Amino acid sequence: MALPVSPLAPKSYPDLPAIAGVRFATAEAGIKYKNRTDVLLCAFEEGTVVAGVLTRSRCPSAAVDWCRERLGAGKARGLLVTSGNATAFTGVKGRTSVAASAAYAAEALGCSTNEIFLASTGVIGEPLDPQKFAGVTKDMSSRLMGAPWMEPAKAIMTTDTFPKLASATVEFDGVPVSISGIAKGSGMIAPDMATMLSFIFTDAPVDAKVLQGLLQPQIEKSFNSITVDSDTSTSDTCLVFATGKAAIAPVTDAGDPRAQVFAEALGDVLHELAVLVVRDGEGATKLVTVTVEGAESDKSAFRIAQSIANSPLVKTAIAGEDANWGRVVMAVGKAGEAADRDKLCIAFGHITVAENGERSPGYDEAATSAYMRNQELEIRVGLGLGAGAATVYTCDLTHGYIAINGDYRS
Amino acid sequence: MALPVSPLAPKSYPDLPAIAGVRFATAEAGIKYKNRTDVLLCAFEEGTVVAGVLTRSRCPSAAVDWCRERLGAGKARGLLVTSGNATAFTGVKGRTSVAASAAYAAEALGCSTNEIFLASTGVIGEPLDPQKFAGVTKDMSSRLMGAPWMEPAKAIMTTDTFPKLASATVEFDGVPVSISGIAKGSGMIAPDMATMLSFIFTDAPVDAKVLQGLLQPQIEKSFNSITVDSDTSTSDTCLVFATGKAAIAPVTDAGDPRAQVFAEALGDVLHELAVLVVRDGEGATKLVTVTVEGAESDKSAFRIAQSIANSPLVKTAIAGEDANWGRVVMAVGKAGEAADRDKLCIAFGHITVAENGERSPGYDEAATSAYMRNQELEIRVGLGLGAGAATVYTCDLTHGYIAINGDYRS
Repeated sequence: MALPVSPLAPKSYPDLPAIAGVRFATAEAGIKYKNRTDVLLCAFEEGTVVAGVLTRSRCPSAAVDWCRERLGAGKARGLLVTSGNATAFTGVKGRTSVAASAAYAAEALGCSTNEIFLASTGVIGEPLDPQKFAGVTKDMSSRLMGAPWMEPAKAIMTTDTFPKLASATVEFDGVPVSISGIAKGSGMIAPDMATMLSFIFTDAPVDAKVLQGLLQPQIEKSFNSITVDSDTSTSDTCLVFATGKAAIAPVTDAGDPRAQVFAEALGDVLHELAVLVVRDGEGATKLVTVTVEGAESDKSAFRIAQSIANSPLVKTAIAGEDANWGRVVMAVGKAGEAADRDKLCIAFGHITVAENGERSPGYDEAATSAYMRNQELEIRVGLGLGAGAATVYTCDLTHGYIAINGDYRS
Repeated sequence: MALPVSPLAPKSYPDLPAIAGVRFATAEAGIKYKNRTDVLLCAFEEGTVVAGVLTRSRCPSAAVDWCRERLGAGKARGLLVTSGNATAFTGVKGRTSVAASAAYAAEALGCSTNEIFLASTGVIGEPLDPQKFAGVTKDMSSRLMGAPWMEPAKAIMTTDTFPKLASATVEFDGVPVSISGIAKGSGMIAPDMATMLSFIFTDAPVDAKVLQGLLQPQIEKSFNSITVDSDTSTSDTCLVFATGKAAIAPVTDAGDPRAQVFAEALGDVLHELAVLVVRDGEGATKLVTVTVEGAESDKSAFRIAQSIANSPLVKTAIAGEDANWGRVVMAVGKAGEAADRDKLCIAFGHITVAENGERSPGYDEAATSAYMRNQELEIRVGLGLGAGAATVYTCDLTHGYIAINGDYRS
């Protein structure tokens, strides 16, 4: 399972700031992987609030159920993340395992189990023995730190080939407020509300309900706008923890002008993490930005962009560096959304390849083929119907994807 | 482009009966392929009626538009099918090319251009010079035959690795009525109303409107229930030509008891051809039947079956002979249809692998892995909610699919 690092991996990783009120530790519990960390425990100081979005899958994991039941209260003191086993579709065993894991974490951190949030990804359907964490959480609680963030980012990985980190800082009245985020995800990526797993930490003093309200629209533009393989996970979880330690007046109302500034910084972090997930798409060699404009509505534009970004034929053509724009036409046509073939305009980067229902008069195969050899590509579609627009991020479909997923469990 | 024959190809091909009133010829027009036939011309005797279903793509090919405009009249004297160029998304050039091709065929057969039906598949967006057929149709019309059907079945192939033929015979009052069908298709297969291309010929005397009414429900159970790669073609076309030459009283009313007998025989032919298309799915090594039962409705069952059959993760696991039923759980969960995780039951063939929301107590990895090595597999899902059921046919996703589609145009 030692996959080569994605060619789309960033050249360097940001050094995320410590967040006042957040400390963490990682450990090797031997859940599935050998010789690497696979557990992350985060401890939050009292007063930390939490907001989150979870998978809309009708078959969610036990950990997702656990979080959903506790998000309403909005209070968090701990986060336990495990890698290699999703605790999904394990029935009563899964529910028991999740509750026991939360109890171990709560005991180690000295808080209520209802203040512990849980997330796990990995194999589906394999029961996880919570005994594996019995001594581990206690040990981790004795060596909590506020940095470096590289350790938690690595501990939550499964088929990821590189850790994913992003941060932003905003100032209010001269006081810096920090947002640090990590994510994991590489396959089974077509989030319906979040990525596989993403955790954001901030010292902003934001009311839990306000935070939840700010989060959802930012998720739409980030994790809900990426796809690796059109398969939506049973474990998708994005949680934002706000410790309130920054020395500014609390944000208790969504109408507070600072709320929007904070939401945009939060959105930047989410967007950066989401694109990192695509860059680590299983087998990916190209990062593709699909932009659809001129649709009847933003929603219609989004569905057409998804249809293009999920099309195996579009994705294999990109893998083959083939400027096969006819497959983009196909994907627009099958999306089930309003489209007028004879108004359609398609560009690869700044090269218009098709317009008014046929190949562009000045189409230059050599120039277009040269463009396709880039590692980062843009597919731009103009529908000429209205003002609806959307952007979806995807990667190519390669032999690597087949190889990784043909024997994942073995 | 000389692909190895699919391992799922049938061991032998049926010898289809000649259909009174139908004659055909094939030719090499050099549209894209070298040293193989790429044009089929069929001639129908006067009185032949036609019914058909065409792609619902919003970007249909010029040939599809041509057929749609002429299906209402229900009369056919000729069919011209070309391979290697889809005449799709070629704007005015495509419309002119299609009209000119029809004119050549009409001249060769001595009928009106409005009685000529056209179909073509291949590259999208490449203009097709109709001059290529100028002498060809005339020559073909001089050597029309009623058999063997292997020739037309081969002439309509593109990335197909074997020809697809099926037939059925029903008797009414001791008089045999024959149905002979051919199809092509291998990739870009997720028909929304038909396959890539399928043509059915019968000597049954059936009224055009009755025939159209009988066809649609049979399409739902055959071509609309298969998927190779979730990509819906711009050229999907299924046409049924009925010459009326069988010596039985005409079927002029859908309530005629013979209509249903005929429709079922027609359905058998369509179903056999549809499964042959899946057997020739690009890169396929396994034929997979996905059956969903106990859904809230047939439509809901169908959508869940499609979600499983289109999931890249399910399909790569099958390619790897991995009994990864957790991915089936994932695909059920993401379908957006009613499902209760804790009632879900999943079987591979007759081996129940999961029930009541977790792995079956008697789960046997060795037995299940042995089952996965079969060339034909069944995935059966029970939802336990209602009486809705559906079956969808698909194939695995292999390195072969990536290789074929990474450089299709070059």
